[in-house]
Amino acid sequence: MKERILNALKKSDGYISGGKLSEELNVSRTAVWKNINSLKEEGYEIISKPRIGYRLISNPDKLSEKEIIPKLETECIGKKYIYKPEIDSTNEEIKRIYSNSPEGTVVVTEYQTEGKGRLGRRWISPDGRGIYFSILLKPNIQPFESPKITQITAAAVAKTIIDLGIDAKIKWPNDIVVNGRKIAGILTEMSGELMALDYIVVGIGINIDIDSKDFNSDIIGRVGGLRENIEDLDRKELLVNLLKNFEMLYKEFIDNKNIEKSIDICRENSAVLGKKIRIIKKGKEELKKAIDIDEEGGLIVEDMNGNRETIISGEISVRGENSYI
Amino acid sequence: MKERILNALKKSDGYISGGKLSEELNVSRTAVWKNINSLKEEGYEIISKPRIGYRLISNPDKLSEKEIIPKLETECIGKKYIYKPEIDSTNEEIKRIYSNSPEGTVVVTEYQTEGKGRLGRRWISPDGRGIYFSILLKPNIQPFESPKITQITAAAVAKTIIDLGIDAKIKWPNDIVVNGRKIAGILTEMSGELMALDYIVVGIGINIDIDSKDFNSDIIGRVGGLRENIEDLDRKELLVNLLKNFEMLYKEFIDNKNIEKSIDICRENSAVLGKKIRIIKKGKEELKKAIDIDEEGGLIVEDMNGNRETIISGEISVRGENSYI
Repeated sequence: MKERILNALKKSDGYISGGKLSEELNVSRTAVWKNINSLKEEGYEIISKPRIGYRLISNPDKLSEKEIIPKLETECIGKKYIYKPEIDSTNEEIKRIYSNSPEGTVVVTEYQTEGKGRLGRRWISPDGRGIYFSILLKPNIQPFESPKITQITAAAVAKTIIDLGIDAKIKWPNDIVVNGRKIAGILTEMSGELMALDYIVVGIGINIDIDSKDFNSDIIGRVGGLRENIEDLDRKELLVNLLKNFEMLYKEFIDNKNIEKSIDICRENSAVLGKKIRIIKKGKEELKKAIDIDEEGGLIVEDMNGNRETIISGEISVRGENSYI
Repeated sequence: MKERILNALKKSDGYISGGKLSEELNVSRTAVWKNINSLKEEGYEIISKPRIGYRLISNPDKLSEKEIIPKLETECIGKKYIYKPEIDSTNEEIKRIYSNSPEGTVVVTEYQTEGKGRLGRRWISPDGRGIYFSILLKPNIQPFESPKITQITAAAVAKTIIDLGIDAKIKWPNDIVVNGRKIAGILTEMSGELMALDYIVVGIGINIDIDSKDFNSDIIGRVGGLRENIEDLDRKELLVNLLKNFEMLYKEFIDNKNIEKSIDICRENSAVLGKKIRIIKKGKEELKKAIDIDEEGGLIVEDMNGNRETIISGEISVRGENSYI
């Protein structure tokens, strides 16, 4: 009922009377009044004028079911959409619910108390200052193919940000950077048998508003927020577009068994290709030149003697020759 | 308190008086009486004779904490021991609790309502007629190494059954057979990042008492129960010995980074080595000769032209040339 009242408020141009709402939705005026109050408590600004009616002034900037589901343009990704104002980690939530949830299930939160990055690192996820969500996938693939999912996701995130007019680059394998600072990260995890994974969960964290108090002094310099790069940013629109782009690229993989489009986006917008990079593996560092990204999502690098090898995402960290990137 | 009373009953040779129990354990006689009744409800047969005392006649044949923990001879495996009289699947329970549970956590049940076999198959787990449990492992390995865990487990299960004097064979990669019929199976699952697994869960199901009504007619002929092969079988002892053997072989892997002992057991007691076997992959069947098991847990096979290849456990099913095995 609350949602139907909210939709009526959104649709109406100006004030709509309590009587009209009550009639149109076939509920008592008391029910209308109660639901309006409940919406106000959720953060919706609604003006009530006696004898004139109600008017919606602003929607809360929340990624709730009510705000997002009507906007979705996807068939599979987000078809089951779960919003949690606060959670330990959206990847962990997917792991808890995977068995009863369909492919494409999305879990979104405003605040992760134990947000996860790669290799057990933390992903700092302050309340309302980012977009933190995970997608449940059930493709028929093997573990060694999971880097493809990371590249598909990196391409979708980069494309969505670039479409806003921001010069985003992909720092292979799983970070999106703007002006050399990390704007977004991706964590791909899997579960199942060696040759028959049950599911993959891909977690995405996007920094929107960065506050120096959220980060340690040693990393604050290499973390950025999207809001610095664009005046008019709508988190809801960003999420909706990202899910749409992800579905398009993921569908290519499922339908055609290739990820050419995603790899093209990753190549064209790479922060590392053509550059010397430091490759950090088990504490050891090597300086190599990044040559290409292959069709499996691996990074082809060359040492100073011209010897090439392919590194796959995993235990390796990549840094710029003289800086974070 | 109940456990301390049970232990006193177990230790006492004959009757022990309520007064003595109350004194030794420093509790009221009413508390002794209440706990004795509660033990009776759990299935312990206890005779109470007025003015003489209590005597334990038989322990229930349960794999409960009370019955198993005092018998454990392991350091890590089973140090956290969780008993559930009934559960959907012990592997699924491990998945739900892994983040707050240490390596070696064991979940045991009498009855799985949704017992799982390989490749999404069912593992039929009738109440009290088998041993069904899972072990949580957190080794620092990558997905492609998970077949080693399956071979370690197969070796531990086979050794434990062979130690009872039963001629058990290992049908690579994950079944234990006696007289050509499946006695036990292993399901290894993993979760985490490609190069940094969070955990592995290894599930073990052992058939003890087979009742034809539990199985479909098409598989009943190839399923066996341990009880057919040995008169005096103690489920509790079997579980305790299995955990001990598993710990010994798993520790070798963790400490020395090899699984030589396990592979030796798998070779010596293989149901397939030296035989022609049918290898079933994606519905297609090939007849090859099983030659050896390698140090990674893979099976080396040879076609009729003498070409060799290594198959790894996963999507492949192995059958005997003319029968199940």
